[in-house]
Amino acid sequence: MSSKIKTKRERVKFASDNVVGACPEVLEAIILANDGIASPYGNDEWTKNLQNKFSDIFEKEVIVYPTASGTAANALALSALTPVFGNIYCHKLSHINTDECGAPEFYTGGAKLVTLNGVNGKITPEELSENMGGVGIVHHTQPSVVSITQLCETGETYQLDEISAIAKIAHKYNLKMHMDGARFANALVSLGVTPAEMTWKSGIDVLSFGATKNGCIAAEAIIFFKPELVGNLPFLMKRSGHLLSKMRFVSAQLDAYISNDVWLRNAKHANQMGKKLSEGLDLNSKIELAYPTQANEVFAKFPRPVIEHLNSEGYKMNEEELDGKAVRLVAAWNTQDSDVDQLLQTISEVK
Amino acid sequence: MSSKIKTKRERVKFASDNVVGACPEVLEAIILANDGIASPYGNDEWTKNLQNKFSDIFEKEVIVYPTASGTAANALALSALTPVFGNIYCHKLSHINTDECGAPEFYTGGAKLVTLNGVNGKITPEELSENMGGVGIVHHTQPSVVSITQLCETGETYQLDEISAIAKIAHKYNLKMHMDGARFANALVSLGVTPAEMTWKSGIDVLSFGATKNGCIAAEAIIFFKPELVGNLPFLMKRSGHLLSKMRFVSAQLDAYISNDVWLRNAKHANQMGKKLSEGLDLNSKIELAYPTQANEVFAKFPRPVIEHLNSEGYKMNEEELDGKAVRLVAAWNTQDSDVDQLLQTISEVK
Amino acid sequence: MSSKIKTKRERVKFASDNVVGACPEVLEAIILANDGIASPYGNDEWTKNLQNKFSDIFEKEVIVYPTASGTAANALALSALTPVFGNIYCHKLSHINTDECGAPEFYTGGAKLVTLNGVNGKITPEELSENMGGVGIVHHTQPSVVSITQLCETGETYQLDEISAIAKIAHKYNLKMHMDGARFANALVSLGVTPAEMTWKSGIDVLSFGATKNGCIAAEAIIFFKPELVGNLPFLMKRSGHLLSKMRFVSAQLDAYISNDVWLRNAKHANQMGKKLSEGLDLNSKIELAYPTQANEVFAKFPRPVIEHLNSEGYKMNEEELDGKAVRLVAAWNTQDSDVDQLLQTISEVK
Amino acid sequence: MSSKIKTKRERVKFASDNVVGACPEVLEAIILANDGIASPYGNDEWTKNLQNKFSDIFEKEVIVYPTASGTAANALALSALTPVFGNIYCHKLSHINTDECGAPEFYTGGAKLVTLNGVNGKITPEELSENMGGVGIVHHTQPSVVSITQLCETGETYQLDEISAIAKIAHKYNLKMHMDGARFANALVSLGVTPAEMTWKSGIDVLSFGATKNGCIAAEAIIFFKPELVGNLPFLMKRSGHLLSKMRFVSAQLDAYISNDVWLRNAKHANQMGKKLSEGLDLNSKIELAYPTQANEVFAKFPRPVIEHLNSEGYKMNEEELDGKAVRLVAAWNTQDSDVDQLLQTISEVK
Repeated sequence: MSSKIKTKRERVKFASDNVVGACPEVLEAIILANDGIASPYGNDEWTKNLQNKFSDIFEKEVIVYPTASGTAANALALSALTPVFGNIYCHKLSHINTDECGAPEFYTGGAKLVTLNGVNGKITPEELSENMGGVGIVHHTQPSVVSITQLCETGETYQLDEISAIAKIAHKYNLKMHMDGARFANALVSLGVTPAEMTWKSGIDVLSFGATKNGCIAAEAIIFFKPELVGNLPFLMKRSGHLLSKMRFVSAQLDAYISNDVWLRNAKHANQMGKKLSEGLDLNSKIELAYPTQANEVFAKFPRPVIEHLNSEGYKMNEEELDGKAVRLVAAWNTQDSDVDQLLQTISEVK
Repeated sequence: MSSKIKTKRERVKFASDNVVGACPEVLEAIILANDGIASPYGNDEWTKNLQNKFSDIFEKEVIVYPTASGTAANALALSALTPVFGNIYCHKLSHINTDECGAPEFYTGGAKLVTLNGVNGKITPEELSENMGGVGIVHHTQPSVVSITQLCETGETYQLDEISAIAKIAHKYNLKMHMDGARFANALVSLGVTPAEMTWKSGIDVLSFGATKNGCIAAEAIIFFKPELVGNLPFLMKRSGHLLSKMRFVSAQLDAYISNDVWLRNAKHANQMGKKLSEGLDLNSKIELAYPTQANEVFAKFPRPVIEHLNSEGYKMNEEELDGKAVRLVAAWNTQDSDVDQLLQTISEVK
Repeated sequence: MSSKIKTKRERVKFASDNVVGACPEVLEAIILANDGIASPYGNDEWTKNLQNKFSDIFEKEVIVYPTASGTAANALALSALTPVFGNIYCHKLSHINTDECGAPEFYTGGAKLVTLNGVNGKITPEELSENMGGVGIVHHTQPSVVSITQLCETGETYQLDEISAIAKIAHKYNLKMHMDGARFANALVSLGVTPAEMTWKSGIDVLSFGATKNGCIAAEAIIFFKPELVGNLPFLMKRSGHLLSKMRFVSAQLDAYISNDVWLRNAKHANQMGKKLSEGLDLNSKIELAYPTQANEVFAKFPRPVIEHLNSEGYKMNEEELDGKAVRLVAAWNTQDSDVDQLLQTISEVK
Repeated sequence: MSSKIKTKRERVKFASDNVVGACPEVLEAIILANDGIASPYGNDEWTKNLQNKFSDIFEKEVIVYPTASGTAANALALSALTPVFGNIYCHKLSHINTDECGAPEFYTGGAKLVTLNGVNGKITPEELSENMGGVGIVHHTQPSVVSITQLCETGETYQLDEISAIAKIAHKYNLKMHMDGARFANALVSLGVTPAEMTWKSGIDVLSFGATKNGCIAAEAIIFFKPELVGNLPFLMKRSGHLLSKMRFVSAQLDAYISNDVWLRNAKHANQMGKKLSEGLDLNSKIELAYPTQANEVFAKFPRPVIEHLNSEGYKMNEEELDGKAVRLVAAWNTQDSDVDQLLQTISEVK
C-alpha cells in the first residue's frame, strides 16, 4: 500500500468504528493462535475455553457461539427464537430492520419484523404492549421475540429499568428477549453496570455480543443465557456457512478481547472521545446535537456548508436516515485526542 | 495455551488441511492491513485491488467477492445461478451435498441437489445427459446448474477434457457451470495447467476459489467469469451476513496468497507430501489405496488394527463415508517430511 | 346436517362475506363442468377460455392464473414481483400484512412488508414517497412493490386519481403496483368505473382478482397486465401446491362469475345492503360509524351492551383490531333486506 | 362448450385419473353444502365432523386437515415433520421428488430429499438403513422423515409387512413415517386390508389421504395419527394459502367420499378396469407390461407404432420417465368396460 493510498484511507475516520483495525492484544492473539494444529469447526481449545470465560464474565453458565459477523450473530440468534410465522418486535431504526438487507427474514424463514416508533431510539413497554395481539389465531403472525439494540441506533443507552420493563412485557406474553449488542461494551461502561446486570438480570435471553467494532478484526458471539433456547443453532450456523473451519482465529480474538479488561478499556476510551467530540460540537452555535451522547456515537445536525466542507477535506459524512437527517460521527478504541481536535477545527473553519 | 494443550492439538495432523494455521506471507499481510483506516464492507483498497489481481491470474476480467467461508462461497455462488425451483447436478459425494448441512438448499431458497453416482469421485457427461429432462414443464424442478469439485472428493482431479465435456452438456441445456475449488491450487499444480485453462477456458462460469486450506486463515473468493451472472449477489451476500465490515482482512489474505506464487508453492509442497505418503502406504501390503492420489489427499483402506493403533498414538482418523470405508489423510502446505515418516513408521508398527 | 346445525350456522351472518355459499350461476357452472373429461393442471378449455374472457373485460390482453385462495393469489403475485430482499409497501392494516400469517414473506423468500400508516385505510403518495430510499445500497432491502387493497380494509375505495398518484410514485422508483382485489367488484360498482380504469389505466401492474366472497366457492385469479412480469409464476404456483389437477372447476366458477354481469349484479346488491345497513346504524344515536361506508363493508363503534346483546342473539361480532375497535359488518351477494332489518331491530332492542 | 370441444376432451381418457369429474355423491354434497351460512376457515360443521368420521374409519382418534391439493397435503405434512436441515428419504421416482416442482423443499424451508433406488417403485429397508448416517453431526443434514407412496409410482402396492419393515428402520433412528396416499383407496382395496392396518398399525405417522383422483373435485386430507406431530401445522397451512375461507366445500366432498363406502366402491371399480386393461394388453404379443398391475395403474412398453396410432386416434399417451420408457394408462372411478375395449381394439389395429 503506497502512502497515497494510506492518506486516502484516513479520510473515513469517524464514519464508523468499523473503519479501524484491531487493538494490539487481539492482533497478538491471532499471531499466537497461528502456531500449531487445532481441530476445526470450533472443536479447538480456544473456542472451548470461551464457554468458561464468558460464563465468568456473565456470572452465569452461558452457551457461546462465535461468529465472524454481527449480522450473522443477530440473524442466527433470532432464527433460534422464532417460528417462520413469528413476529419480531424492534425499533423502526434498528439495525436488524434497516441495515441487514433482510438477514433476519432470510434466516428465520420469513418471520415478520414489527417495527415500533419508540421514543428517540428506544422502544417502550407501552407501545410493545399495544402491539401484542392475535396469539393463537392462525390468520396472524405470532408474537415471538423482542429485539433491542444496546447501544441503540441513536447512540443512547437503555437504562436497566427500561430493559426490565420491556422484558417484563415480553415474558408476560411468552416472547423471548434478544439484545443486539454490536456496541455492548460502549453501553456497558456508559452505564457503569455489570454484564450480568445489563443482560440476564434485566431479562435478556440471548445476546449478540459485538467485538469487531471495539478492537477485533471479525469476532462476535451469540450468547445464550438459557440453554433450552439453543435449539438447533449449531445446525443453523453450519448451514449458513458461518461455522468457520479455522474457528480458533475468531475465538482467539474474543479470548484476548475479554481478557485483562481489554474490551472495557477500549470502550471507555472510545466513549471519552465521543464525549469530547460531543461537547466540542455543542459549543458550536451552528450545530445542534440530535440525541444525547451517551457513549461513542454522536448524532448532530450539521448545516449543509459544514457537511460540504468536511467532505472536501476528506471526511466521509455518513448521513443517517433519521428524523431531521442527523450526521453520525463515531469514535473508536483508537481515536486520538488530536483526531477530535482536528475535526472540530475543520468544522470551525466554516463561516 | 499450555504445552499440554499444544501436544494434544498436534494429534489431529493429517485429519484435514484445515487443522493448520496460515502461512507466513498471509499472516504478515494481516498484520500490515491492521495499520490505519479503511472503508468498511469491501470498499477498501485491498478488496478493490483483488479485482485486478485475479483478472491477471485468470487472463480475463473477472468479478470477485471475497468471503470468510467455503460453504458460504459455494452456497452464495449457487444462489446466483439457480431459481428456487432449480436442479443443481452434483456428485453424490460432493461437499455441497454431504458436508454443508443443506447450505445450498438454504441459500437458493429450496433448489434440489440432483446427485449423480459418477465414476469414482467424478461425474460423467453421460450420466449428466441422462438426467436432463422436464425442461419447461411446471411439474418438474428445472435443470439449472452443474457443480463439480476440483480437487474432487476422492482426491482425484478432473482432466481439462473431462471438464469441457461436462460443460458442453451443461451449456447445451442452458445450465451454468460451477466449480467448487476448495482445493483449487492443489488440483491446478497437479494438472500443471493455467488457472484460465482449468476454469473458463474449459467452460466454468463461476468458481469458489479456496484459500483457507492452503495457507490462509479464513479466505475464499467467489469468482465470476461472466459478469452477467453476478445478478443480485451483493445483496444476497449482505443478507447472509457474509459481507464482513472489516473485509480488508479477508482481502489482504487473498492478496498475499495469490502474490509471488505463494498459493502455488504451498500447493506443490502439500501435493509432494501427499505423494510421499501415498507411495509409503502403497509399499505396505496391509494397506490398499482407495483412489489414485493425484494431489494432497490420500484415501486408503486401513485394517481395523491400524486405525486403532493410530488413534491410540494420537492420530484422529477421519473415516469418510465412501464406498469401502476408506480413511482420508490430507497433507497441508506445512506438512513436514518427518510428519510423513512418523506416520508411516507408526503404521508399520502394527503387526 | 340437522336443522339445529343449520340454525347455528345462520348466526354468523354479517361476520364476513365468506360465510355464504355460491350464487346459482356459479354452482350451475360447476355441475356442468363435471361432465366429461378434461386435461388436468389448467390445460382444460375453461382455463384457456378465461384468457380471452378476462382480456375482453379488461380491454387489454391479460395473462390469467386461477387459484382457489385469495391469500395464495396475493402471495404468488407478490413473489413474481420482488426479489427475496425486496420491500413491499402496504398499509399497516392491509390483509397481506395482518391476515395472511406471513404468506407474502413465505412466498417471496423473505421480502419485507414496509407498513405505512396511511389516512384511514388508504396509503398516500406522500408517505410512500418518504419511504423510498436506500436504492442500490446492499445494506438495505430494496423498494420493489406497492400493494394496495381495493376495496380497502376500512371499507373505503381508492379513487382513480388516488391510485394513479400512488402508481406514479411507484413507477418513478421502478416499483411494481399490485392490487389486492379481494372485493374488486364491490369497489368497482361503488366507483362506477370500468375494470380497465380501476387497474392498468390507473397504473396497476398485477391484480389479485377476488371472486370467492362475491358468489364463488373458491375462485380467485392472478391477472397480469404486463406479460413481462409473469416471470416464473407457473413454476412458483406449482411448487406451492396451488396448481390444482382438476383446475377446470376453479376456472368454470370464474367463467360463470364474469359472464352475463353476474359479478357486477352480485356486488351491486351487496353494496346496496351495505348502504341500507349503514344508514340504519347511522340513525341510532348510540352508534358511530368508524369509516364512511362506500361498498359492502360497514365499520361501526358499538357500545359494549350492543355487542353483548348481538352475540347473545346469535350474531358473531367480528371486532377488528382497528383504531377505536370498530366492529365490522359485511353484506354479501345474497343478503336479504329482512336480514338487515332484523339486525337493526336487534340492535334497537338495547336500551 | 361445443360438442367439438367435448370430443377433444374425451381424448385424454386413460392419461390419468385426474381427467375425470366427481362422482355423483360428491357433487351432490357440494350442492347441499351451498345452502345457508357457515363459519369460514374450517370452523364449519362439515370440517368439524370430519374429525370423527376419519377417526371411525381409522379406528383411532386422528387429527385431520382438509386441503384442495395433493401437492399441498404432501408438502405441508412433510413441513411438520422435518427441520429445515432434515433429510426426507423417498424413492427416486416418488411424486414428491419428481412431480411437485420442489414443493417439499419450499414448504420445509430447504430440507433435502434423499432419493433411494428401491426395487421397482418401492424402497427397501436395507437401502434405507444404509443411508442413515451423520446423526448429530452439524456438517450433515439430519435424517428426519421417510416418505413412501401407496399406491406407488409404478402402480405397485407396498405389502403390510413391507411398510412395517421400513417403519421399523425409520423409528429406530427416530424418523417419522409419511405416506403419500394419492391413490390410497386403490391400494387399500387391492390389498384387502383395513385403513388402520395400512397406516398406523404398520407404522405410518402421517398420511396424505387422496380423494381428488378417486371421485372428488379437489379434496385431500392430511391425517395425523399422533397428535404430538401436528406442531404448527395450522399456521403453516394458513401462511401457505391453503386454508380456504369456504372450507366447507372441501370438507363436504371428503364427507361424502368416505360415507357409504363411496371411496371403496370407486376404487374397486377403477382397479377392475385396470385389471381388465392389463390382461388385455398382456394378450398382445407386441406389448410388454413394465410392472405388475396391482390396482388402477397400468405400465406397459408400447412399440413406437402403437403409441403413434393411439395418439393419432386421440389418445394422449403419457410416457413416464421410467426405466425403459413405459407408457402409463390409468383407469378411473368411472371408466367404462367399453372404454377399455375401445382402447384395446385401437391397439390391436396396429399390425
